[in-house]
Amino acid sequence: MTKKHNFNPGPAVLPPFTVDKTIEALKDYDGTGLSIMEISHRSKEFQAVMAEAQALMKELLEIPMGYSVVFLGGGASTQFFMIPYNLMKNKAAYLNTGSWATKAIKEAKFFGEVVEVASSADKDFSYIPKDYDIPVDADYFHITTNNTIKGTEIFEDYDVAVPLVADMSSDIFSRQMDVSKYGIIYGGNQKNIGPAGATFVIVKEDILGKVDREIPSMIDYRTHISKDSMFNTPPVINIFSALQTLKWFKSLGGVPELEKRNIEKAELLYNEIDRNTLFVGTAAKEDRSRMNVCFIMEDEYKQLESDFLEFAVGRGMIGVKGHRSVGGFRASIYNALPIESVQALVDCMQDFEAQHA
Amino acid sequence: MTKKHNFNPGPAVLPPFTVDKTIEALKDYDGTGLSIMEISHRSKEFQAVMAEAQALMKELLEIPMGYSVVFLGGGASTQFFMIPYNLMKNKAAYLNTGSWATKAIKEAKFFGEVVEVASSADKDFSYIPKDYDIPVDADYFHITTNNTIKGTEIFEDYDVAVPLVADMSSDIFSRQMDVSKYGIIYGGNQKNIGPAGATFVIVKEDILGKVDREIPSMIDYRTHISKDSMFNTPPVINIFSALQTLKWFKSLGGVPELEKRNIEKAELLYNEIDRNTLFVGTAAKEDRSRMNVCFIMEDEYKQLESDFLEFAVGRGMIGVKGHRSVGGFRASIYNALPIESVQALVDCMQDFEAQHA
Repeated sequence: MTKKHNFNPGPAVLPPFTVDKTIEALKDYDGTGLSIMEISHRSKEFQAVMAEAQALMKELLEIPMGYSVVFLGGGASTQFFMIPYNLMKNKAAYLNTGSWATKAIKEAKFFGEVVEVASSADKDFSYIPKDYDIPVDADYFHITTNNTIKGTEIFEDYDVAVPLVADMSSDIFSRQMDVSKYGIIYGGNQKNIGPAGATFVIVKEDILGKVDREIPSMIDYRTHISKDSMFNTPPVINIFSALQTLKWFKSLGGVPELEKRNIEKAELLYNEIDRNTLFVGTAAKEDRSRMNVCFIMEDEYKQLESDFLEFAVGRGMIGVKGHRSVGGFRASIYNALPIESVQALVDCMQDFEAQHA
Repeated sequence: MTKKHNFNPGPAVLPPFTVDKTIEALKDYDGTGLSIMEISHRSKEFQAVMAEAQALMKELLEIPMGYSVVFLGGGASTQFFMIPYNLMKNKAAYLNTGSWATKAIKEAKFFGEVVEVASSADKDFSYIPKDYDIPVDADYFHITTNNTIKGTEIFEDYDVAVPLVADMSSDIFSRQMDVSKYGIIYGGNQKNIGPAGATFVIVKEDILGKVDREIPSMIDYRTHISKDSMFNTPPVINIFSALQTLKWFKSLGGVPELEKRNIEKAELLYNEIDRNTLFVGTAAKEDRSRMNVCFIMEDEYKQLESDFLEFAVGRGMIGVKGHRSVGGFRASIYNALPIESVQALVDCMQDFEAQHA
C-alpha cells in the first residue's frame, strides 16, 4: 500500500507516538487490567492523566499564574456561545476573518451587541484586516487566529485594552506566543492536539464573574476551573490521547522546535506554489497561514483541477481538496505532519507540472 | 494476573468486541491507511459510522417515526440545561429520586419554575415515589429512570399528559421499553453504550420549537437534527466505539436478550445479598435497580467494611466501593458485564461470610 500523507483539515494527522500509546492504553491501561475506556474518571490513574495534561499545557505554552486550563466536551462551537455567556455584559468586538469568525459572531449576537470591527469579506477573506478601532467599552475582543478554510493566520499577540479572546483551534502550539496578552484562548483538540471530542480552554480567572446573567453550571467556566475539569465525566480517551501529543511536543523540544518545523514546512510548500506555473496561492502573502495552505489552479489550467486531485490521491495524498465552500486545494500541515509529507506533495506538484505545463 | 471483574459505575465495562474493534480501527480504519482518530468526520467512512449508529439505535429501541437520534458531546450534564432551554416556557415538573435528579432540577431553575412533584429524600432516596400529581400546565415532566448512586430504578414507561423527559444514562438498553411514551430520552454513553465523551439524545421532533427564547445553535436540538449530528465535529472515536457496542447488542438478540440477562444477573446478586448474613441491600425491594446494586454491611459487621473491600479487590473486583457520598458497596452490573463477574462477586461474598460470620 502507498504510504499515506494526511493533509486532512481536522480531525487530522496525529503523531505515531499518540496513536501507538492510545492503542496500548486501550489494551490494558497502566497495569489496571482494564482498557482506558473502562477505567473510572475518578480513578487515581485518570486523575494523573488530567493533571499531567493540564500541567504540560501550562509548561509548553508558558502560561502565567492566574490562568487555568480546562478540557471540555462539545467542540469549539460550544465556546462560541460560552464566551459571550460568561463575558458579555452589553457589547463585544469581533474581527471577521472567515467562516469560523462569522459563526462565532452569530452566536455572540444572542447575548448582546456585537461590533464587527473589521472584515475581510470584501476580498473573500483572503487577508487579515489590520487597521481598525476596538470600542473601549467592549467587554472583550474576539479573533480567530488561523482561518482553516481561507488559509490566513494572525502571527502577532495583539495588545488591546480589553480582554482578548482567541479561537486557536487550528494553530495552537504552532508558534511561540505570549499567553499573558489573552483573556481566553480556546480550541477544538482535533487539529493540533488530539482526536476530536475534547476542547481546551485557557482562561484568565480574573475576567470571569463580571456578568449579571445567571449561568447554568456546565456553561460557567468557574464550575470547570473549581472542579479541575472533573465536574462531570470528561472525555477520558480523548484527553488521554491529547496528553500523548503534549508529551511528544515536549520530547521534540517544545514550541520553539514546533515553530521552526512549521516555518520550514510552510516555506517549502509556498515556495513551490509560487514557482510552479500551474498553481497560485489564494491568501495575501503576508497573511499566509502556516497551518492551512490554500491554492488553486492558474486560470489557464482550471480544467486540470480534478486531474490533479486524482493524481495526488494516487500518490497517497489525503485531504488536499479545498473546503467544500471554496474548491481548489488545501493542504493542512499541522504540527504532527512530517516534512516528508510536504516534500511528497511538492514532488507531486512538480511531476504533475512536468506532465501538463 | 487475576482476571478483573469491572463493576465501575461509569465509565464502565465494555464488551471485548467493542474494545477489540476500536483497537483495530485505531491501527488502520477500514483500509484508509489512517487511524480512526485521523479521518475526517465528513469522510464517507465516518458518515457511514454515524448513519449506522443512528439506525441501530432506532432499530434496537424500536424508535417510532417522528423521533430523531443525535449524538452530542458534553455529557448528560449538558442535557440538564439544554432540556429546559429547548422545552421550558414557564414551568416544568421534576421527580426527585436522587443526586442526578437533584442536579437536573438545579439547572432547570435557571429557566423557569420547577415543580418537584415528589421526592424520596425523606428516606435517603432509597425508593421511587409513586403517588403524585403532575401539573397539567407543566411544559414537560422529567424523570431519572435509574439512580446510579442509591440503586433504585423505574421499570415502567409512565403515561403522562405532558412530554415525558427521561435521563436514561444508566439503564438505556437494559429493558424493553415503549419509546412512544417519551418526548426526550437522553444519557451519557459511558455506562451502557461506549466510552465517555458522547451523549445520545432521542427526541420527538414535534415537541421542539415551542419556546420564545432564542437558542444558541449548539444548544438547539433542531440544529443537530437538521445536520444529522454533523453541525460541528462530533466525537469521532467515541461514536465509533458506541457503534461497536450497538452491533454487539444486535448480535446477541437485541434488547429482549439484554433484559433477560440483566434480570438474571440482578437476581443472582440480590438473592445473595438477601441470603448472606453479613450484607443488607439499601434500596426498597420493589425499586431495586438492575444496573447498580447497592448494599452495606449489617450493623453488627460494620467494622468489616474495609476488610471486605480489600478482600474483593484481591479477587480482582474493581469498583465495588459505594459512591463517595454514601459509602458501603455498589456493584454496577451494566449490559456489558458478564454473569461470570456477578458470580465471582457472589463467590467472594460467600467466602468472606465463611471467614467472618
